[in-house]
Amino acid sequence: MLTRRAHPSSPHLSFFVIENREQRKTEIIECNAGITSTYRRGLYASVDMPLDADVFQVPSGYNAPQQVHITQGDYDGAAVIVSWVTADEPGSNTVKYGKSKNNLELSAEGHVRQYKYYNYTSGYIHHCVLKNLEPDSTYYYALGENCTVRVFSFKTPPVPGPDVPYTFGLIGDLGQTSDSNITLTHYKANKDAAAILYTGDFSYADDYPNHDNVRWDTWGRFIESSAAYQPWIWSVGNHELDYAPEIGETTPYKPMLNRYPTPYKASGSTEPQYYAVRRGSAHIIAFASYSAYAQYTPQYQWLQAELQKVDRKVTPWLIVIMHAPWYNSYNYHYMDGETQRVLFEAWMVQYKVDVVFSGHVHAYERTHRISNIDYNITNAKCSPVSNNNAPVYITIGDGGNIEGIITNMTEPQPSYSAFREGSFGHAIFDIKNRTHAYYTWHRNQDGNAVAADSMWFTNRYFNPTNDS
Amino acid sequence: MLTRRAHPSSPHLSFFVIENREQRKTEIIECNAGITSTYRRGLYASVDMPLDADVFQVPSGYNAPQQVHITQGDYDGAAVIVSWVTADEPGSNTVKYGKSKNNLELSAEGHVRQYKYYNYTSGYIHHCVLKNLEPDSTYYYALGENCTVRVFSFKTPPVPGPDVPYTFGLIGDLGQTSDSNITLTHYKANKDAAAILYTGDFSYADDYPNHDNVRWDTWGRFIESSAAYQPWIWSVGNHELDYAPEIGETTPYKPMLNRYPTPYKASGSTEPQYYAVRRGSAHIIAFASYSAYAQYTPQYQWLQAELQKVDRKVTPWLIVIMHAPWYNSYNYHYMDGETQRVLFEAWMVQYKVDVVFSGHVHAYERTHRISNIDYNITNAKCSPVSNNNAPVYITIGDGGNIEGIITNMTEPQPSYSAFREGSFGHAIFDIKNRTHAYYTWHRNQDGNAVAADSMWFTNRYFNPTNDS
Ligand SMILES: [Fe+2]
Ligand SMILES: [Fe+2]
Repeated sequence: MLTRRAHPSSPHLSFFVIENREQRKTEIIECNAGITSTYRRGLYASVDMPLDADVFQVPSGYNAPQQVHITQGDYDGAAVIVSWVTADEPGSNTVKYGKSKNNLELSAEGHVRQYKYYNYTSGYIHHCVLKNLEPDSTYYYALGENCTVRVFSFKTPPVPGPDVPYTFGLIGDLGQTSDSNITLTHYKANKDAAAILYTGDFSYADDYPNHDNVRWDTWGRFIESSAAYQPWIWSVGNHELDYAPEIGETTPYKPMLNRYPTPYKASGSTEPQYYAVRRGSAHIIAFASYSAYAQYTPQYQWLQAELQKVDRKVTPWLIVIMHAPWYNSYNYHYMDGETQRVLFEAWMVQYKVDVVFSGHVHAYERTHRISNIDYNITNAKCSPVSNNNAPVYITIGDGGNIEGIITNMTEPQPSYSAFREGSFGHAIFDIKNRTHAYYTWHRNQDGNAVAADSMWFTNRYFNPTNDS
Repeated sequence: MLTRRAHPSSPHLSFFVIENREQRKTEIIECNAGITSTYRRGLYASVDMPLDADVFQVPSGYNAPQQVHITQGDYDGAAVIVSWVTADEPGSNTVKYGKSKNNLELSAEGHVRQYKYYNYTSGYIHHCVLKNLEPDSTYYYALGENCTVRVFSFKTPPVPGPDVPYTFGLIGDLGQTSDSNITLTHYKANKDAAAILYTGDFSYADDYPNHDNVRWDTWGRFIESSAAYQPWIWSVGNHELDYAPEIGETTPYKPMLNRYPTPYKASGSTEPQYYAVRRGSAHIIAFASYSAYAQYTPQYQWLQAELQKVDRKVTPWLIVIMHAPWYNSYNYHYMDGETQRVLFEAWMVQYKVDVVFSGHVHAYERTHRISNIDYNITNAKCSPVSNNNAPVYITIGDGGNIEGIITNMTEPQPSYSAFREGSFGHAIFDIKNRTHAYYTWHRNQDGNAVAADSMWFTNRYFNPTNDS
């Protein structure tokens, strides 16, 4: 049972707790060929970590670069966007970088910006693109100047190709609670994952009065231990809208767009919220659930063109990330994605998308390969049916944010649902070659080697077996 | 049979013609209690009027104000926004106005702007708000200066009240062909209509190379004979997007937003494309089919709040205007509005909207009162059913634009469709009092007194009889 309670230290906040704290045993129930796991994590309050938590600490040194994160900077992975914040003064926009840690022979010049949000003024936010990087190489990069220089590193992906092995992590709705910290720590222990596909809802700063943007800063410091070293490939959630007309903030996405750039122009997009990149053997499409997408709109036109550009012979794996799930059998945000599903699901089938990752629902779920695209208003054909050309839909909104875990499910488990469990965790999509990828979901309470859910994906283009 | 042909004088254009030019007889076929009218208008090409057409002429005199149009300027009708263009120099931003034509004792100061679109530079576009107007009064207003002054007039609506009679005209997808001219001339002959509810798609300038914005200017001159004298209350269509990344034009709605302001702030909206006004006994909601509208977005939040603000005791008639129809049985744009329907239809029923007017489909259609809101993915309840709380949906996209008339319909006529006919025309929604309104549709070939379709509406709040 889920109950909303006042936050003990911050009365303006509330959080969910699950009353039955004793139910820790793992038990599997099968219904309609789908599995509803009754495993429950240790059920404590999902409270944001306090401002003085270790993971939020500002690095030492005058004007030290903080909130360092990187993302892919071009279509094919030969560029990286480096972002960081300085608090004392604008400081340098330069990134020094190179393949030898002791000889950062290259440098690139970025830009700096600030933004205001109600009564908050941001630090100096820097963005710098490193271009023409060699593939499959480790680069070191240094930020800062004088006595306060910080050095990080990342590895570029191989040139896109059909049999490039590549391992993606999946995280969504992370937030900044102690659960979030467990999720991220757990994820980092997986040494193979080389980049994160993020399914939206970042900091949950908007759960604070006036969307206290200090919580955007703490979140930036929190994720740095991963995001400074591997690209987080962003899709946008509702918590990034930060739309607050009651305090005069009417420009959607203001904090997110100032802080988390995307390489949208490289894929012909004209808005940062939706775009595509190729990485290894994957073509990744980031769809924006909360931007305009109706027919004729920029996003619709862009997505239509981008799907036609996909070359499965180069990137066999077609992956879509977005925030609102189209198939979700929890009683939370049920059918939230319906307005997008009825418009775009036929394209997912037509273009044989391998997998769609979503967030938004703070739980985990994986579907069978199903579609529901025959409806024409008058024919009553509106039930999901098996479809071997359809993607698997995975809800991975279980990052651990302040709004708590969801366990209230529709019953019986719908036939489209293959596995569902209300626990926090992350997932790994491990592409082996053009035909196979191994997918695993890792709940936070298990060791890293344990997969609470798993599936061998066969590629929809090269090897479309009945894998789900 | 509908065929697309090259335009004889402009090879880059094409248009639809209906091959069977002889079929002019009126014949009514009943199917499923719905009527498919086989009346066909005289079938000539829908070609835009030439640039030297009378209705496009620039008024005489140096820097003469042109493209004059007005729209409601506040929530309740005590303000009017006056817009006009000057071509020779910016000129005056002043509007002189008053209740006596010979004594324009009041004045208001507006603003002027220009915009560029690819290789086009607009004239000097003026917008000026006249506030604190007395209700139910005729005002005269003068634009221009020196020897070139033009005088127009409008009548303010009565203070909103439940039994205020008020007559709205309905026009959509007007364009600027000779058919458009017939539609507008026909409409103007109806002396009772006091304001237009416009269902989107204005000039069709985007059908020209580089969206030739000269065609925005001609359209502004074309509609002046009506729009300078009575408010046109706008909703936005896909042809207002003017999104053309191939020529570097990536800001949606640029020409429309520069030229056709709306009083969006008065209803708490933060974007000009969606808003509400009250006029007479009607509460009118303009929904933007091509802006973001998913849950959490500004439009969604605004619409949710606006529906809660509706006070049927003051404005018994709740009218929604939008571009893409939710119910349409033509084979053109079939299910284009589905993504919006599945999200918002339940609200239309919950709030007992009297009527939803749409455009987009270049034909005419009226539905029964039906809804399709019980679907939950797994229950197969996805057929429209009679619902006395549901609005009547009317497609009035038959203004006469360059893209031609649509006659290709789904067969058999679906049970939700009450009347459909592929002819150009306009409609009149004549509110008599809190319980009754008389609705008529006027095809262009008939005299103004003839209604090719009609219906007595009974109000959903005060008199919800089974009227459809
Ligand atoms: Fe969310
Ligand atoms: Fe349209």
